[in-house]
Amino acid sequence: MLPRGRPRALGAAALLLLLLLIGFFLFGGDLEYVRPRGAAALDGDPPADRGGHNLSDCVPPRPLPPKCELLHVAIVCAGHNSSRDLNTLVKSVLFYRKNPLHFHLVTDAVARNILEMLFHTWMVPAVGVSFYDLEELKPQVSWIPNKHYSGLYGLMKLVLPGALPPDLARVIVLDTDVTFASDIAELWALFAHFSDKQVIGLVENQSDWYLGNLWRNHRPWPALGRGFNTGVILLRLDRLRQAGWGQMWKLTATRELLTLPATSLADQDIFNAVIKEHPGLVQPLPCVWNVQLSDHTLAERCYSEASDLKVIHWNSPKKLRVKNKHVEYFRNLYLTFLEYDGNLLRRELFGCPSPPPPGTEQLQRALAQLDEEDACFEFRQQQLTVHRVHISFLPHEPLPPRPHDVTLVAQLSMDRLQMLEALCRHWPGPMSLALYLTDAEAQQFLRFVEASAVLSARQDVAYHVVYREGPLYPVNELRNVALAQALTPYVFLSDIDFLPAYSLYDYLRASIEQLKLDSERKVALVVPAFETLHYRFSFPSSKAELLALLDSGSLYTFRYHEWPQGHAPTDYARWREAQTPYRVQWAADYEPYVVVPRDCPRYDPRFVGFGWNKVAHIVELDAQEYELLVLPEAFTIHLPHAPSLDISRFRSSPAYRDCLQALKDEFHQDLSRHYGAAALKYLTALQQPPGPA
Amino acid sequence: MLPRGRPRALGAAALLLLLLLIGFFLFGGDLEYVRPRGAAALDGDPPADRGGHNLSDCVPPRPLPPKCELLHVAIVCAGHNSSRDLNTLVKSVLFYRKNPLHFHLVTDAVARNILEMLFHTWMVPAVGVSFYDLEELKPQVSWIPNKHYSGLYGLMKLVLPGALPPDLARVIVLDTDVTFASDIAELWALFAHFSDKQVIGLVENQSDWYLGNLWRNHRPWPALGRGFNTGVILLRLDRLRQAGWGQMWKLTATRELLTLPATSLADQDIFNAVIKEHPGLVQPLPCVWNVQLSDHTLAERCYSEASDLKVIHWNSPKKLRVKNKHVEYFRNLYLTFLEYDGNLLRRELFGCPSPPPPGTEQLQRALAQLDEEDACFEFRQQQLTVHRVHISFLPHEPLPPRPHDVTLVAQLSMDRLQMLEALCRHWPGPMSLALYLTDAEAQQFLRFVEASAVLSARQDVAYHVVYREGPLYPVNELRNVALAQALTPYVFLSDIDFLPAYSLYDYLRASIEQLKLDSERKVALVVPAFETLHYRFSFPSSKAELLALLDSGSLYTFRYHEWPQGHAPTDYARWREAQTPYRVQWAADYEPYVVVPRDCPRYDPRFVGFGWNKVAHIVELDAQEYELLVLPEAFTIHLPHAPSLDISRFRSSPAYRDCLQALKDEFHQDLSRHYGAAALKYLTALQQPPGPA
Repeated sequence: MLPRGRPRALGAAALLLLLLLIGFFLFGGDLEYVRPRGAAALDGDPPADRGGHNLSDCVPPRPLPPKCELLHVAIVCAGHNSSRDLNTLVKSVLFYRKNPLHFHLVTDAVARNILEMLFHTWMVPAVGVSFYDLEELKPQVSWIPNKHYSGLYGLMKLVLPGALPPDLARVIVLDTDVTFASDIAELWALFAHFSDKQVIGLVENQSDWYLGNLWRNHRPWPALGRGFNTGVILLRLDRLRQAGWGQMWKLTATRELLTLPATSLADQDIFNAVIKEHPGLVQPLPCVWNVQLSDHTLAERCYSEASDLKVIHWNSPKKLRVKNKHVEYFRNLYLTFLEYDGNLLRRELFGCPSPPPPGTEQLQRALAQLDEEDACFEFRQQQLTVHRVHISFLPHEPLPPRPHDVTLVAQLSMDRLQMLEALCRHWPGPMSLALYLTDAEAQQFLRFVEASAVLSARQDVAYHVVYREGPLYPVNELRNVALAQALTPYVFLSDIDFLPAYSLYDYLRASIEQLKLDSERKVALVVPAFETLHYRFSFPSSKAELLALLDSGSLYTFRYHEWPQGHAPTDYARWREAQTPYRVQWAADYEPYVVVPRDCPRYDPRFVGFGWNKVAHIVELDAQEYELLVLPEAFTIHLPHAPSLDISRFRSSPAYRDCLQALKDEFHQDLSRHYGAAALKYLTALQQPPGPA
Repeated sequence: MLPRGRPRALGAAALLLLLLLIGFFLFGGDLEYVRPRGAAALDGDPPADRGGHNLSDCVPPRPLPPKCELLHVAIVCAGHNSSRDLNTLVKSVLFYRKNPLHFHLVTDAVARNILEMLFHTWMVPAVGVSFYDLEELKPQVSWIPNKHYSGLYGLMKLVLPGALPPDLARVIVLDTDVTFASDIAELWALFAHFSDKQVIGLVENQSDWYLGNLWRNHRPWPALGRGFNTGVILLRLDRLRQAGWGQMWKLTATRELLTLPATSLADQDIFNAVIKEHPGLVQPLPCVWNVQLSDHTLAERCYSEASDLKVIHWNSPKKLRVKNKHVEYFRNLYLTFLEYDGNLLRRELFGCPSPPPPGTEQLQRALAQLDEEDACFEFRQQQLTVHRVHISFLPHEPLPPRPHDVTLVAQLSMDRLQMLEALCRHWPGPMSLALYLTDAEAQQFLRFVEASAVLSARQDVAYHVVYREGPLYPVNELRNVALAQALTPYVFLSDIDFLPAYSLYDYLRASIEQLKLDSERKVALVVPAFETLHYRFSFPSSKAELLALLDSGSLYTFRYHEWPQGHAPTDYARWREAQTPYRVQWAADYEPYVVVPRDCPRYDPRFVGFGWNKVAHIVELDAQEYELLVLPEAFTIHLPHAPSLDISRFRSSPAYRDCLQALKDEFHQDLSRHYGAAALKYLTALQQPPGPA
């Protein structure tokens, strides 16, 4: 990177002299500014930092922004896949950052929905987020014909100076397909190098695209030399506004579009055309801040000399499959953050006072009040854990809601992924599934779905990732996440190890219609539950077949051997003969699988781990006077499986059972508080020995 | 797509004019200034780097070591747990490093065994490793009475100047309980600050220990002020040798031990006593290079002012459970590297030519020869993958080998962890188990074992972690890892979903003795295999009970329904009646579970994914003329389970089956090559339809 050869060296020497002179004039009185850093070094501040043996030997124009300066980042993000990319980008930024950050996210409705929930539940200290509606901004760029794969979204970067808050003076603009390998404050520090006239910081393009003549009739937009890449931009918003940016780029674009049919590289073509016209606007940035990994990239020139890569840009439509002889190296950096446990980024920033994320203080008070010696400490702690939630992790296109439609709601972890294909075959309707996964498992899950023809074909299954944290399985919180995301008027509250009758989806909708239910009516339709103890098993195609299997001992009513009271009130004997729905009464420990209106009570999230979590929900339905109606043709069958790790870890522990009892007691206390005397029956019922099954 | 309509065109023209005028005023004189920078940028030369507007602004005197300088690190490491710590420490160093590194590891036999395999299979470019025998060095320090929890190992740091190669001039010495949060080259750069007399770089102690009077009769060793912490040391070995370090510390230690009963903090007491006597030896390092997290630490003074933490030191015996109000922050940094996928660190160092790790070149040639369009590309790639192996991941104390002893050998992944407790109950003897896990899963596994009373109690079960990489399950490679680590003369080659008869371990040893086998004799004892399709199942306690269950249809011979030829040659009818071992002949597709001498043929690692992996091994045994003897009282039973993710992902794919066929064909070709005409029978047998089961 140093000038090569004598003429260059001479030139450099002259430049050095010149700069020293300039430095003398500019910073002459500034030695005071420099020296304290050296002094600070003795106070526990490393004497060598970012390159200074002794910083006072060298007068770098402000290496980093002031310690706690708030840095602003703008990103355009639309759709499910882009939201996942943004998550990875943000993880890489947060990993290295030492400053408070504010993300300005220009999003469509899908991405906003996902990202609002993600950031809200992430609770990262010293991170702010604002959303801007992409739809509102669209008209400003939709007139531009564009051939780039990023569609209109790429162009959106042009309108940021007008879209972001008028008092925001500077912003770093990032594409969602970049990965940071360094502290973003170092990038922000480059603003200090802007001359008074410069408004845009950009890295040179690392391809020959803008040189033209790549093939016959290849006519790129005008650019200075190779042009600049807009995956990473420093914008002086204040100056852009002053300079009339909004008019400037439109004028250039309009003029170029007189002779060019469309933009090929979206915003980048227009930025380059403007810069070609006004070269004084641009501050070129060091190439390491946007190492571009296309097939035909010249990026190697950049990184083979730099010991430090700062930002990698996957700017090929092929992304990670790009052909580049060092792609493994870059892929590893990317995978690092793809699989990085985002919970670990909830760490505070030392010495930068910033308002804690909403809810944090309350949470920390509650956590501080816990008694570590309490035998149920782990339970209490788990109950207070806020899990990071990434709703609609995969693309999902729900049908417009229909009046009697039913969504199957369930939750699972990695060890039940194999159930998904079978479930899709049994339930052709919409599903809302919460998955309890680590960040790395979420990627395995993604590959699992992509590899499955059955799963890839379904557009009506929404997967919501709840990131693992804590030792106990938050079963009811998971159910609530899935329930909250159901979009149909009714939900079938199922469990992942059950396969419903093939006809159940149609039958439920027909029943809801025939029974003239509306979502105001508090009714829970009971789907009788059975189980097979055989691993290999041929699923009955009708109630008659099911009854035959029951009689031959191939099927049982669910948990017939260990926990008959869980389903006894369904009254299987009556169900055998029933032709029409019949009403049943609540009894202690009843935990049927039910179809209810979407706005039904939530599950009680205090039940973490295993045990009593569904029972409590049915108590709640009964307390709120839901009518229990058993459907005569409905059934669902539990398949056998080895106990999950989460269960087996705790089932054998007496302490675990004691804590479960404590949870139950507290649940009943709360019940009495909410429902008064009416709740007495639940406590009384609990104290009776269960009746005959 | 030209702009439509005259008004727009007119407006645009007016705007253009306006902007040209604005441009003239704003940027008029600047074009000259801008152009040279633009030109420089076009050469791919970043105009600014490391925060410099222009590198020539600033002449820093070597901020970091020369780009490719080899940095040396010494670590003392003994035992299983320390080896795991070292792995985490090395991951944190490698994550940030940009220089070639050489690790000098002073180890006991256990750690050496583990770490040699770990580094050998890790294959990190530009990383060298040397081992030094801790036992040999022990006599130099074993005379020192010591009360610190690190035992003699801590003291070992004193003898490094003599133990490391005489031409090694500088080394960074690290405790295994430190975590890096920065590039180790920045630490190495601090050597440049040593005066001519300084030989040791250390960070001040962040506790009041050496001030004394913490309690009545608290009399610490002498130290300068708070003294220094020896978790992170820079050693000028050349000067230490010249200064007669070996004599110097011994003299001081001997003198102090006249009045003090023992060292309390091992080497640290002695280093401090020497420094107190010769203060000119020490170069104090910035506190951020050793942030000490004890209960009573003063570290907060350090990190609350520094924006940058460089190295964290878990120097409390409580480690991560230490009470410190910011412990969550530090814990997160530690967990980052604990769970970090070490495979991602196999990335090359750009621009630092260094000899590739042994085997790499051959591997890369083989990988380069693969055809990406080949339908079996994934298989070929997986076969060539070198998996990182961490043998004896948990403490393990094998009994001294006994002549007829048998080790149960098996492999598993996360979804079979639940089997371990049952397996321990069924097999009271030694086991060697390979686990295919990610780094994060390995930590889950560790917690799982710690939480289980049954598993924690066993000292004779060795767990070998093979880190996941690639899409296909390397079943035979896993088996080979477990097999290679078995320490008894015989091995029982089992699968994780089988539970052996409670009596099997004793019965096998007795049979081996009665049959007067010795490990020279090529014999494979067949353990007949059965299966239950019921999820709940009461295990037969004798052959008679097993036969009763077989007759009642509760048990079947293994894979009776889908693959009878796999076990037909065992001749179950004969087994019913047999009182003594009987010989059987190999037949196509036979895959019994066998007990063989430890030096039996390895499994063929070309079989990745699922299918035919055991069949090929039995063919190999037969080709080497192993005698197959069925034991009349032996049995093992397969438990039902849902198909694992690894199986279900591929079982349905026709391409998968085609590739399996290709693997079989190649296996047979190799067989002919090795065994000549004798191998013909395997090919012929394959072409016959299987006989009646």
